Amino acid sequence: MDSELHPTALCPRYHHAVELIGRRWTGAIVRIMLSGTTRFSDLTVAIPGLSDRMLSERLKELEAEGIVQRLVFAETPVRIEYRITDKGRALSAVVDSIGAWAEEWIPLEDTAPTAFARA
Amino acid sequence: MDSELHPTALCPRYHHAVELIGRRWTGAIVRIMLSGTTRFSDLTVAIPGLSDRMLSERLKELEAEGIVQRLVFAETPVRIEYRITDKGRALSAVVDSIGAWAEEWIPLEDTAPTAFARA
Repeated sequence: MDSELHPTALCPRYHHAVELIGRRWTGAIVRIMLSGTTRFSDLTVAIPGLSDRMLSERLKELEAEGIVQRLVFAETPVRIEYRITDKGRALSAVVDSIGAWAEEWIPLEDTAPTAFARA
Repeated sequence: MDSELHPTALCPRYHHAVELIGRRWTGAIVRIMLSGTTRFSDLTVAIPGLSDRMLSERLKELEAEGIVQRLVFAETPVRIEYRITDKGRALSAVVDSIGAWAEEWIPLEDTAPTAFARA
């Protein structure tokens, strides 16, 4: 078979998207940001187990991808917000479909032992 | 802000699901299997860049997750098929939503392999 002409050949945009959203902690961060959370400290509270260093790294990546916008307000003390962009907001259909699949097919006992409740 | 309203907002089932589907190559493998591909060699043709070793590892993980079933047919030579299960087939809504988002929001030039390489 010729992979160039394969009828089911993999779309590079899909490939990029699925590995972006599924990158460690990214799916969690996007879901919480879709619910309106904009501050670093609130994100760390909402996602137990996520370190400050990892959150910072992931926010930088999401900013580079155009999914998150970092805003600095010149107040005293300086206030920083991370806002989800239109591109990020469009991920809500993805997040919802993954949530629905997970609720139907993933038994709770297959997940991390940490006892956090559902949104 | 309202951090006390969502300190436990992250659903562990969603978290498990998003990182499962987004694991390197897994989203690609699932998408191709949803189109009916069942043989190891056809999967490697359909997904350029995916090594035999990595495909083998990912299929084992998907089997452990109940998303893929490995069937051995006692013929000569032995024939092996990897079939997507009902749990895997239910991922088609997820794959479709990611595909739709990617088509709208990911420019093709962002999808060069080097732009998103990870182990």
